[in-house]
Amino acid sequence: MTHREDSTDTSPFFSLDIPVRFVETDLMGVVHHSAYVVWLEAARVAWMDAVGMPYVEVAAVGRHFAVTGVQVEYRAPARFGDMVSVAATITNLRSRHVSFAYRITNAASGELLATGSTQHICVDLEGHTARIPDWVLSRLKEGMHSAVPVESLR
Amino acid sequence: MTHREDSTDTSPFFSLDIPVRFVETDLMGVVHHSAYVVWLEAARVAWMDAVGMPYVEVAAVGRHFAVTGVQVEYRAPARFGDMVSVAATITNLRSRHVSFAYRITNAASGELLATGSTQHICVDLEGHTARIPDWVLSRLKEGMHSAVPVESLR
Amino acid sequence: MTHREDSTDTSPFFSLDIPVRFVETDLMGVVHHSAYVVWLEAARVAWMDAVGMPYVEVAAVGRHFAVTGVQVEYRAPARFGDMVSVAATITNLRSRHVSFAYRITNAASGELLATGSTQHICVDLEGHTARIPDWVLSRLKEGMHSAVPVESLR
Amino acid sequence: MTHREDSTDTSPFFSLDIPVRFVETDLMGVVHHSAYVVWLEAARVAWMDAVGMPYVEVAAVGRHFAVTGVQVEYRAPARFGDMVSVAATITNLRSRHVSFAYRITNAASGELLATGSTQHICVDLEGHTARIPDWVLSRLKEGMHSAVPVESLR
Repeated sequence: MTHREDSTDTSPFFSLDIPVRFVETDLMGVVHHSAYVVWLEAARVAWMDAVGMPYVEVAAVGRHFAVTGVQVEYRAPARFGDMVSVAATITNLRSRHVSFAYRITNAASGELLATGSTQHICVDLEGHTARIPDWVLSRLKEGMHSAVPVESLR
Repeated sequence: MTHREDSTDTSPFFSLDIPVRFVETDLMGVVHHSAYVVWLEAARVAWMDAVGMPYVEVAAVGRHFAVTGVQVEYRAPARFGDMVSVAATITNLRSRHVSFAYRITNAASGELLATGSTQHICVDLEGHTARIPDWVLSRLKEGMHSAVPVESLR
Repeated sequence: MTHREDSTDTSPFFSLDIPVRFVETDLMGVVHHSAYVVWLEAARVAWMDAVGMPYVEVAAVGRHFAVTGVQVEYRAPARFGDMVSVAATITNLRSRHVSFAYRITNAASGELLATGSTQHICVDLEGHTARIPDWVLSRLKEGMHSAVPVESLR
Repeated sequence: MTHREDSTDTSPFFSLDIPVRFVETDLMGVVHHSAYVVWLEAARVAWMDAVGMPYVEVAAVGRHFAVTGVQVEYRAPARFGDMVSVAATITNLRSRHVSFAYRITNAASGELLATGSTQHICVDLEGHTARIPDWVLSRLKEGMHSAVPVESLR
């Protein structure tokens, strides 16, 4: 996991490095598109850890961020042997909703592989919409203010 | 796989029934959002089979439909024990590009679980953009004309 | 799903037909070995459905069959475009334990692709070992007596 | 990835730390058994990297280590929020065959979660059995001699 201080270019504030797993490739010789959706999840979970609001703590009080939408745009392939960098930032934070934007690059070359976004709603253990607990909301806000604007991620 | 003739309501022309796999669930007790992306793929592969243009035949001549975009909107959860119906239709077909739209419902209740869309570009074995072979294009067009308009899928 | 009556040869009593998913392939051009483990699960779940003891009913009373062991022997590859037949049978049934044996073949050619076995322990929702409920045990026994002996699966 | 020098206890020589992915959990609230098979692969790929014989270099000369067998014994569950340590070592190395043994522990507590083993055969791009190239064999032998005996992994 790298936590880069450099904000003079368009690099995002936070990114997670993930080595491509052999199982994630398909017969076209590149990483299957569905693996990127899993990488987005790994990155937002790591983002929450990095800003001091681990997802396990949210789950521990009976709240979850159910995914309501996922969008991924694929630009260039990732291959076995590659390390990918998944940058994540919160783009919207409300009392019940949160959205993230992502940028996936080849960690070695910096080549842009994909961009993405996810939208979430806070739910309780029965799946009913619930307010994001105040202490969770404030920690997420702090993390949000450290993130780069959406524009620099795309 | 069900091939329904009824076009008097908003049901799509072609749908694939998929039983939820236990592995597709997560600790929230419902199907993980990434599984839906895999279901979309299963549905378009089955759609191509159904219209007489099996994907394996396209792959056999060194062409693939690389995914350039995926969008999924999640409405209601799918659970282990459920059978989901994934309806698919082509919404755009060009010399190098093809797009699909999908509608995922609970096969038993008809409840709308999710909607989705994918965009693809035809590539050769080196990953370079290529024309969709004519015989593939015409078979896809035939299948397309049998499908319901996008609007009825959303 | 096929329910074959023929017991004059070594074919198992129950098998589930599963179409290979594109995502299950890897860069070697064949199905990744981890997908077979998922197929075994799909087959035993379908086996339980077929013998009138759906797994969802077991889960509904707070019991699960936690996997304690998995063994798979790979003989020949499965490829995208193939349909695989996964035959399953119970080989051991105790008050807290159950074991299954499997045989995976190419549905079209009958070619043996893999064999496998899984061992399970009944647990409650806290993960503690528990007795398999009597009504579950008897339905499983009935299903077991219809199955072919282990030897014919290997 | 940790490369521990301590061989006075039964700790293996090489282990890979892997954070549990949310998608790897299932409705029982723990990691699904199939994820462990993927972790074994990640560990042996990392083992090969660590001993200076990256798998990508083997693949680059048209050779692959096709899996002929997998065995996993599950002892205790892994959960979302956990980091697991997957220790790997080669237990058998022949001109065409190689076997690995693994030990999966909770990285924080050291609790034994699972043990496993995999067997592989070297194949060419057509899937035919092939000799492991000499330079690959010697690098693997070097790595093997640094590893702890199988016994200490179980």
